[in-house]
Amino acid sequence: MKKVINAVEDVVTDALAGIAAAHPGLSVDIPNKVITRAGGPTAGKVGLISGGGSGHEPLHGGFVGLGMLDAACAGEIFTSPVPDQMLVATKAVSSGAGVLHIVKNYTGDVLNFQMAAELARDEGIEVESVVVNDDVAVEDSLWTAGRRGTGATVFVEKIAGAVAEQQAPLKAVLDVATDVNKRSRSFGIALTACTTPSSGKPGFDLPNDEVELGVGIHGEPGRRRAKHAASKELVNVAVSAINEDLSLAGQDVLVMLNGLGGTPLIELYVAYDDAARQIAALGGRITRCLVGNYITSLDMSGFTVTVCRLTDELTGLWDATVNTPALRWGI
Amino acid sequence: MKKVINAVEDVVTDALAGIAAAHPGLSVDIPNKVITRAGGPTAGKVGLISGGGSGHEPLHGGFVGLGMLDAACAGEIFTSPVPDQMLVATKAVSSGAGVLHIVKNYTGDVLNFQMAAELARDEGIEVESVVVNDDVAVEDSLWTAGRRGTGATVFVEKIAGAVAEQQAPLKAVLDVATDVNKRSRSFGIALTACTTPSSGKPGFDLPNDEVELGVGIHGEPGRRRAKHAASKELVNVAVSAINEDLSLAGQDVLVMLNGLGGTPLIELYVAYDDAARQIAALGGRITRCLVGNYITSLDMSGFTVTVCRLTDELTGLWDATVNTPALRWGI
Repeated sequence: MKKVINAVEDVVTDALAGIAAAHPGLSVDIPNKVITRAGGPTAGKVGLISGGGSGHEPLHGGFVGLGMLDAACAGEIFTSPVPDQMLVATKAVSSGAGVLHIVKNYTGDVLNFQMAAELARDEGIEVESVVVNDDVAVEDSLWTAGRRGTGATVFVEKIAGAVAEQQAPLKAVLDVATDVNKRSRSFGIALTACTTPSSGKPGFDLPNDEVELGVGIHGEPGRRRAKHAASKELVNVAVSAINEDLSLAGQDVLVMLNGLGGTPLIELYVAYDDAARQIAALGGRITRCLVGNYITSLDMSGFTVTVCRLTDELTGLWDATVNTPALRWGI
Repeated sequence: MKKVINAVEDVVTDALAGIAAAHPGLSVDIPNKVITRAGGPTAGKVGLISGGGSGHEPLHGGFVGLGMLDAACAGEIFTSPVPDQMLVATKAVSSGAGVLHIVKNYTGDVLNFQMAAELARDEGIEVESVVVNDDVAVEDSLWTAGRRGTGATVFVEKIAGAVAEQQAPLKAVLDVATDVNKRSRSFGIALTACTTPSSGKPGFDLPNDEVELGVGIHGEPGRRRAKHAASKELVNVAVSAINEDLSLAGQDVLVMLNGLGGTPLIELYVAYDDAARQIAALGGRITRCLVGNYITSLDMSGFTVTVCRLTDELTGLWDATVNTPALRWGI
């Protein structure tokens, strides 16, 4: 498998150097693998941090900026960052109003963020955490106790980021983050496995005529293998699984049709067309959407569907100004 | 090869339906495969149109909106739209101030846009055309007399779009489009071939340890095959080829490090880091940049580098408000 890299051990730091060169609005601490907004913390504002293994770009570094995250910690590919990185990030964004950790529910991330929160509290920083667990595919998985955290992370980062930007107290930012997670569900489908730079070969075997239904963002097994089928049938598996867990009937919904990294945008729009029709047929009203690569799995081919039940207030927060490498509007 | 589609013959129209569903700011004429801004033409404004084969998304439909294109015509995958589509688009965006056709230099596109321009003139619409030919890899190619038109198309659409938004006359819009093309150069490298839905298999054979230097955006052959190498070596081939054709020393430059569809964003940032260092070493000053998938080749793995020599005026036009699905700032 050919990759555009220099050395396997330098992929993450080389990419961080590229992010630093491309985005003058960001400040990148390459030794600690921490991306923050340039200019330091905003006085009186709750600091929002996320992070996780690399290989899911633009998540999380692409969501640092006005109206969204204050910092992102990058682990090695598909590997949690360590508590020391998270502590560096927490201290970097702390302005006295407290810090919220937004954590995808993977065991390594959860444990490391817990330890970082304790270390930060020892230094007098108030820290709260929200664990995102939106993936309805499986209850427990290879790397997870409970449901995995996937696409809803983008929604939590955006909407909690908007609340934090209004100088809301930590409790209010935590509450909206918790609420968005509860209102969100995801389901993913892989057409191919992804290849990490260190292994150099696909992470699992998937025959040419099969797909993995309910795949995780590292290629973890999902619910089952199935014969590859038309977009509308694959999308139906995802939308039905979501709707069975959280009914969409009569709801205003935010939908993300997300590519896993290797699927062309033209195919994501085909799938979005199917998703929009199916959600409408279930009685849901799509009032906001995203179509593109937002939380990826290196070069994996496939897509995830994430849905969030909106309220008028959440819609306003979604629409609030955001200025990050990967999401930008209102500015 | 597995794809997220319903039927091969419906890929383009299904994707157009998805674009219509996702972007309320666009109006999509699905039978004619024409995307325009919702709300019709702006009085007194030159209309900007581009188009080409599908499979390069977000180009061109993703660049329709305030500050950029007024319309995009979508052909079938890797196939030029027909003159009738271009005529429909030309009439849809004509408000009496004239229309500019932005054409990538591929023989089919050039001939069809010429015919459409004649048909439009017969109906009393003033039409000018700019043919983009920025790819330094080869002088003539499989589908081209002269150099191919690739990444500079994004720059021409953005900067000419900004001039048109100022209600400049057709001649001024044409002149800046021509100037941006002359100031821009591109070079692409493929790590894998892409697979069209209709063929179902890679468009060319590329051994596991080789890359295609100077590849075209449909997988057309480039300058030569070479052994796969580190990012910095691949990027050096691209940047050197550009610099030999148009010196970057002492210049303010806009750089696009573009993914061809199947390359993870983390790798594009690795390549951007190398490009930024090499351009600096050549004496160029990168003052603006884009990193991501902007002009793709379905699921091809690889990247293109496009560079434009900026002036203060062009920088201001680049920075001007744009509100399209794929580029958005200032709003």
